[in-house]
Amino acid sequence: MDERVREHAEVLVDWSARVEAGDDVVVSVAEDAHELGVAVAEALGERGANVTTLYGSSELSRAYLKGIEAGTDGDVDAEDFDADPAVDRAVFEAADAYLRIGGGRNTTATADVDRPTRQAYAKARKGVREARMDTDWVSTVHPTRSLAQQAGMAYEEYQEFVYDAVLRDWESLAEEMAQMKDVLDAGDEVRIVTERDDAPDTDVSMSIAGRTAVNSAASVAYDSHNLPSGEVFTAPYDTEGEAFFDVPMTIDATRVRNVHLAFEDGEVVDFSAEAGEDALADILDTDDGARRLGELGIGMNRGIDRFTDSILFDEKMGDTVHLAVGRAYDACLPEGESGNDSAVHVDMISDVSERSRMEVDGEVVQRNGTFRWEDGFEE
Amino acid sequence: MDERVREHAEVLVDWSARVEAGDDVVVSVAEDAHELGVAVAEALGERGANVTTLYGSSELSRAYLKGIEAGTDGDVDAEDFDADPAVDRAVFEAADAYLRIGGGRNTTATADVDRPTRQAYAKARKGVREARMDTDWVSTVHPTRSLAQQAGMAYEEYQEFVYDAVLRDWESLAEEMAQMKDVLDAGDEVRIVTERDDAPDTDVSMSIAGRTAVNSAASVAYDSHNLPSGEVFTAPYDTEGEAFFDVPMTIDATRVRNVHLAFEDGEVVDFSAEAGEDALADILDTDDGARRLGELGIGMNRGIDRFTDSILFDEKMGDTVHLAVGRAYDACLPEGESGNDSAVHVDMISDVSERSRMEVDGEVVQRNGTFRWEDGFEE
Repeated sequence: MDERVREHAEVLVDWSARVEAGDDVVVSVAEDAHELGVAVAEALGERGANVTTLYGSSELSRAYLKGIEAGTDGDVDAEDFDADPAVDRAVFEAADAYLRIGGGRNTTATADVDRPTRQAYAKARKGVREARMDTDWVSTVHPTRSLAQQAGMAYEEYQEFVYDAVLRDWESLAEEMAQMKDVLDAGDEVRIVTERDDAPDTDVSMSIAGRTAVNSAASVAYDSHNLPSGEVFTAPYDTEGEAFFDVPMTIDATRVRNVHLAFEDGEVVDFSAEAGEDALADILDTDDGARRLGELGIGMNRGIDRFTDSILFDEKMGDTVHLAVGRAYDACLPEGESGNDSAVHVDMISDVSERSRMEVDGEVVQRNGTFRWEDGFEE
Repeated sequence: MDERVREHAEVLVDWSARVEAGDDVVVSVAEDAHELGVAVAEALGERGANVTTLYGSSELSRAYLKGIEAGTDGDVDAEDFDADPAVDRAVFEAADAYLRIGGGRNTTATADVDRPTRQAYAKARKGVREARMDTDWVSTVHPTRSLAQQAGMAYEEYQEFVYDAVLRDWESLAEEMAQMKDVLDAGDEVRIVTERDDAPDTDVSMSIAGRTAVNSAASVAYDSHNLPSGEVFTAPYDTEGEAFFDVPMTIDATRVRNVHLAFEDGEVVDFSAEAGEDALADILDTDDGARRLGELGIGMNRGIDRFTDSILFDEKMGDTVHLAVGRAYDACLPEGESGNDSAVHVDMISDVSERSRMEVDGEVVQRNGTFRWEDGFEE
């Protein structure tokens, strides 16, 4: 076995999920993630944890949903599914940790399942999802040929990309990110400015007063549930201005390019996209919260240096910032308060490596990708 | 998809497990059983059942147990495992049905796990196993290259073998087997006689008075949990005589050939085997019950016409009978009574297609493989 697979498993089990002896750990293994599954199972055995392994196959999910479509007349709605089926609920209610290892054989395996079917399925499983989110859950991927293809990369090249992103000195990255968190926690207003020759400029401001930033250092100990991670994020509000997102993205299997959003009084009042504008419109029309921001995130993982059409990696890329319309994370909000609510959470990413700056309360924190605590920073 | 895979899924879901809308079904998919898993998921969706999919990987199990070995000093015992871990227990306690789809990549994937480790693991999971047996469980296999290899067959040849065994007219086989069950239920004593030129003769008698035969027609509706099945079995006692088993078998990864057992007062008092005698001795020494019979079975699935080194198929082969030392099944016993108890249950099979007869209370029921209700039967 590639030694990097073992190291990935150890980071996942020890740094990310903080598994201890006696923990009840549920591992979901995607179709082509077998090898990392094996390494994780061995690591869990060594630590004396209990393991239950789910098969996270998109092709099985598709087959099940196509079966539901075939077995019901006309459109599928949430009533065609049992709400929160007993076994799935029991699994996550009994689990201490949930390790989701993605890496299927086809990233578009569910493309021919009707959208209402998928939405109805998700709606019927709200309780299962909440039980899962109540565990120490971590989501990662094993590098597969299918993900390499989605990234437009050769398989070996993609493996290197994944391990560069995952096998980091997380302790030291966490320390660096803590500086960004401190700035955001102390600040009241963030302004992001970028200038482009061939696209609209960005000049967008938002309030973060009273909000708490998450130092997302790829560990449940930091309220961070992705491996890799490497972003600092908070929950902004009262957004004003214009924002342009030049990093490509995929919304619901549709490629979306060069999104422009205009905000007034915290809401999107105008939008456009060079590709995928209908998919963007669908998202923004989902509910009231879908037109307000749920997240401001600052990508700080410089092990990720290119777009690979996977939000797990893209939003953590060094020299990027992202804004998400939709749901805000509770971890950013004062105890007991809830932030922007929505059924969606869609991240949109801007390259800030050139002709850009981020200000907090009028002071520049990052210019052209360089943070103020780094060499070469220009005030 | 091969139409036979779909038909296999339908037999499994409808005939075997009797799944209905709203049932909570757990499906375990082995490493190379993906395709049948997909067909089963679709069938479950069509019927409106809920599905939770486990990954039944022998390589993950091996890795976990090797991890446990690495994480403990010296020999592993049951205390090194949590008894009946919460998630696994919860899964089976909440499930209505459990469909186990075998078909890994290597039938000897756990060969280097110490036997005490495997035994300790099994011992610590008695409650999980009991919860699983309390569901409507069915065990089947998807034909894989690994199973073809174990059977000594080409892949396509093995696929045909599996579908010949599985895709039967189960309703009509169940009716035929009912005749055998009626004979056994009405009878008090079974005698099996085979003559061989190159091996010891068999002449063994056993009591079945008060016992109930199971018409194992591959459906939970018949107390039958294997697909394929096609045997009628009961729980004999007070065995006397000599029995020779010429169908090869594998005990705990050891090939065992040409077993001879001598019974007195219901117990094995002498034994030999041309190969694997030590493995046989280990089994017989497990506990008191391991030297008494737990099962007499009559193979009646003529879709299975050759030995493939898999007990799921071998014991149901037409023109064979088998005796198992060890544990008896409760379904064969009067309500509330328990039969022979043991930690083991090991089936041994005899070819009865030639120079053989089975008598019940002195009347010949089967001679040279032909039952008395079949054409060509000679009294």
